[in-house]
Amino acid sequence: MLPRLYRSVAVGLPRAIRAKSTPLRLCIQACSSSDSLKPQHPSLTFSDDNSRTRGWKVMGTLIGLGAVLAYHDHRCRASQESPRIYSKEDVRSHNNLQTGVWVTLGSEVFDVTKFVDLHPGGQSKLMLAAGGPLEPFWALYAVHNQPHVRELLAEYKIGELNPEDRMSPPLEASDPYSNDPMRHPALRINSQRPFNAEPPPELLTESYITPNPIFFTRNHLPVPNLDPDTYRLHVVGAPGGQSLSLSLDDLHKFPKHEVTVTLQCAGNRRSEMNKVKEVKGLEWRTGAISTARWAGARLCDVLAQAGHRLRETEAHVCFEGLDSDPTGTAYGASIPLARAMDPQAEVLLAYEMNGQPLPRDHGFPVRVVVPGVVGARHVKWLGRVSVESEESYSHWQRRDYKGFSPSVDWDTVDFDLAPSIQELPIQSAITQPQDGTTVESGEVIIKGYAWSGGGRAVIRVDVSMDGGLTWQEAELEGEEQHPRKAWAWRIWQLKAHVPAEQKELNIICKAVDDSYNVQPDTVAPIWNLRGVLSNAWHRVHVQVVP
Amino acid sequence: MLPRLYRSVAVGLPRAIRAKSTPLRLCIQACSSSDSLKPQHPSLTFSDDNSRTRGWKVMGTLIGLGAVLAYHDHRCRASQESPRIYSKEDVRSHNNLQTGVWVTLGSEVFDVTKFVDLHPGGQSKLMLAAGGPLEPFWALYAVHNQPHVRELLAEYKIGELNPEDRMSPPLEASDPYSNDPMRHPALRINSQRPFNAEPPPELLTESYITPNPIFFTRNHLPVPNLDPDTYRLHVVGAPGGQSLSLSLDDLHKFPKHEVTVTLQCAGNRRSEMNKVKEVKGLEWRTGAISTARWAGARLCDVLAQAGHRLRETEAHVCFEGLDSDPTGTAYGASIPLARAMDPQAEVLLAYEMNGQPLPRDHGFPVRVVVPGVVGARHVKWLGRVSVESEESYSHWQRRDYKGFSPSVDWDTVDFDLAPSIQELPIQSAITQPQDGTTVESGEVIIKGYAWSGGGRAVIRVDVSMDGGLTWQEAELEGEEQHPRKAWAWRIWQLKAHVPAEQKELNIICKAVDDSYNVQPDTVAPIWNLRGVLSNAWHRVHVQVVP
Repeated sequence: MLPRLYRSVAVGLPRAIRAKSTPLRLCIQACSSSDSLKPQHPSLTFSDDNSRTRGWKVMGTLIGLGAVLAYHDHRCRASQESPRIYSKEDVRSHNNLQTGVWVTLGSEVFDVTKFVDLHPGGQSKLMLAAGGPLEPFWALYAVHNQPHVRELLAEYKIGELNPEDRMSPPLEASDPYSNDPMRHPALRINSQRPFNAEPPPELLTESYITPNPIFFTRNHLPVPNLDPDTYRLHVVGAPGGQSLSLSLDDLHKFPKHEVTVTLQCAGNRRSEMNKVKEVKGLEWRTGAISTARWAGARLCDVLAQAGHRLRETEAHVCFEGLDSDPTGTAYGASIPLARAMDPQAEVLLAYEMNGQPLPRDHGFPVRVVVPGVVGARHVKWLGRVSVESEESYSHWQRRDYKGFSPSVDWDTVDFDLAPSIQELPIQSAITQPQDGTTVESGEVIIKGYAWSGGGRAVIRVDVSMDGGLTWQEAELEGEEQHPRKAWAWRIWQLKAHVPAEQKELNIICKAVDDSYNVQPDTVAPIWNLRGVLSNAWHRVHVQVVP
Repeated sequence: MLPRLYRSVAVGLPRAIRAKSTPLRLCIQACSSSDSLKPQHPSLTFSDDNSRTRGWKVMGTLIGLGAVLAYHDHRCRASQESPRIYSKEDVRSHNNLQTGVWVTLGSEVFDVTKFVDLHPGGQSKLMLAAGGPLEPFWALYAVHNQPHVRELLAEYKIGELNPEDRMSPPLEASDPYSNDPMRHPALRINSQRPFNAEPPPELLTESYITPNPIFFTRNHLPVPNLDPDTYRLHVVGAPGGQSLSLSLDDLHKFPKHEVTVTLQCAGNRRSEMNKVKEVKGLEWRTGAISTARWAGARLCDVLAQAGHRLRETEAHVCFEGLDSDPTGTAYGASIPLARAMDPQAEVLLAYEMNGQPLPRDHGFPVRVVVPGVVGARHVKWLGRVSVESEESYSHWQRRDYKGFSPSVDWDTVDFDLAPSIQELPIQSAITQPQDGTTVESGEVIIKGYAWSGGGRAVIRVDVSMDGGLTWQEAELEGEEQHPRKAWAWRIWQLKAHVPAEQKELNIICKAVDDSYNVQPDTVAPIWNLRGVLSNAWHRVHVQVVP
């Protein structure tokens, strides 16, 4: 889609600028700096990479002069008038093309309706910020934080935000979720309490590493607010060994191990299963999956220090979170001891996510990261680790996160009969274009992700433009994967040629892993009452315009 | 099917016996022993287990007295006449119900046409022996080797085999395959030279362990005839280590390790792929898979003795067979060193198969067994082992046994772009009833196998009787599987009720492994030019009679 947008912008910009007459030189020094436009949350700053940066470099050349001209003209005139004042609600109500698209940056309000089609990153990405502040998005995509972008934006300023609206609303102390952290506005919220949200497809495959603020969030309970100074991780010692009570500093004394891991919720793409027949669970679309660079102590090192060794008989490492429900029951889960003790499995007690301390929503100060395994075992806000002969007795280990035959319903289900989900099956989905949208004929870029559990590498993604009659191989991007330790996804894309006479496209993707496992063709035969393990071919239907 | 057959037999036998008048006591001592009826090949003797044995016990009670009566009557009368002489060709031409069904046992010829429907093991199993000797089958299923069975058979004797026909035809010395071993007549031959054959579905899931004589055979070259006394296995030593030249006795000095492993050819079920679009390869049906108890030295122990250790960088263990083509090129393949060195992966240099020395067709005296991995890496007649930084340069590692997208044809294929097949994906197939046959309404037994590569356990088999609209869970039989080391298949069965008004059944099976990988719905989207990895749902269409 980018090449098409470049053309639109190149055509559109001069037209926008043409109307102005510019007393240019007079204004340059008086109006040229505005520190207030910088992002407000430096901790969110995230360096975007590759293609978008390249796109902007091209754009910069095109729009540089014109935007500077327009900016100075506008600023000089604006400084002579007193600004109009808008409420946050005024801004929020302008969140679509019918009402107009308003955004804020600091205290300034902008009507960017006419810029939506010119946005080099695409209309849909700008629309994610419609009716709200730009800062959270600019913080993610630092490419915006350049003078010529700010200048371009100034063109669209229409007033100032009501000073009272610049503060957050007061919290209700009686609400167990009142202490939950602030979240990024781009997240698509599937449940507010507990908080469950996914990044929108437009952003999901923008980068190999998912920025922390939009990493999918799957909470089961309110987010605990833990003091890193008093935090202790209790590790129950082996018989004859010694139990440990580890501070954050203690954990840092273990060798620091870093690994890039994709986490996926068992319920990812549940919404497709729900269309076949109703299931119980959050309506995740394709975004309950994200990738981060994690760092922490290896679980095997910590367990060894507590005297644990591999056993002849099957055993399990049980984790307990410090999040709990009103009865005091904590979130819990377990993994086999064999995986925990295998240095090659790289199971972490992670305290860093993409070079930052874990965000609160992702388990601050310490969470488990189990590469290749379903998200539900990556226990957050970790409080306790023990080795048991049985799996965790937690509800989420024994009465949830299991797969069943389509014939099993809530009257017949016996959770004891299915094994807990550990490694996940091969998965892929299309993030661009989105279902129900329209694309232009010519070169159409299809983009998405693919991942498999258990360290199995994705070796191929097949894409069909005709509902599965013929297939083309997508190009796999992102880092090369280590054999048996392919813990992270591959972003993929395919440039397809769509003839002008084509009316619609039935786009499908399906991936293959290095055990040559493939995705099933359809959803109904893998339907299950909890709507987990939804990994059928992903299908997207779009209209084509010439 | 068994319950129905019990009923037929119980009704049928008294009718057959009713016609006789029996001077019983006079003949008992004169006619009661016949050593010549024992199986000719003691090494083939194989103890059958569980369900069939139980079936025979029931049968024994039913037919015991009647058969004894009939037998003595017949033997006493037969001994008074000179027998008719038949040629082997006469017998061979009576191999179906139209011409009549003849079999031989030792020198005796029997017309068992009227017994076919009464056979407790089912008509189709008896028909496997039609037109030929019974010994190879009785050797497999020792339950036949009982007095009352021999007595029952004597009832149907029609004459003797021409003495000249009791010898095998002479071999042609110029044929490179002239030295190949004798094979079991039940094997369905897909290629005679090199020999490639599979057990028929009727026998495949008769027992958890596949008897050696009907274990599927996939040879790429003539079978070498190796002298166990002079046999040496050459193991190239690590830098600084020592190369080994191991006799069979030397191998026996390593700790003996036993493991039950299912082997599957990458081309299993290729015939289904061939129906979608022509592929290159042998027309395997569902039988290119078998299970044995293997014993031998662990590869990791042998490699360690030659000084090999796990390396930081990826490395491969290359195997060379002692079978070779006219240019002297041997069969070869490789597996990753990480798997070879992992004691938990249980890779064997096997010298025993089901408690016997390896049969010649299966690699005598030594073959590699790589649990969870495609058959092509289990190199037979093993001559040489080395550790290399690259995969084996063998044709079969680099130019074969790889998977491709359905869009790749022989003009566009680039074998370097796909990884060699190692672990295989989840697989299952129906062995009973067979496609195109007829079943009776009422209780119908559906039976088959399921297996997954990489040690992933089969956790569920779903069976549909209505083409995939609804599913029932099959009962899994066979041994419990160890987590992460589920190297052997599960036999499964489902007892389904089929109403009398039903005209036909579209039976499907699909399996799930413990990484919740599933089989794809259809064949076309996984079609590939070599016809490997054919693991779509298995479909069987049968007619129903009331």
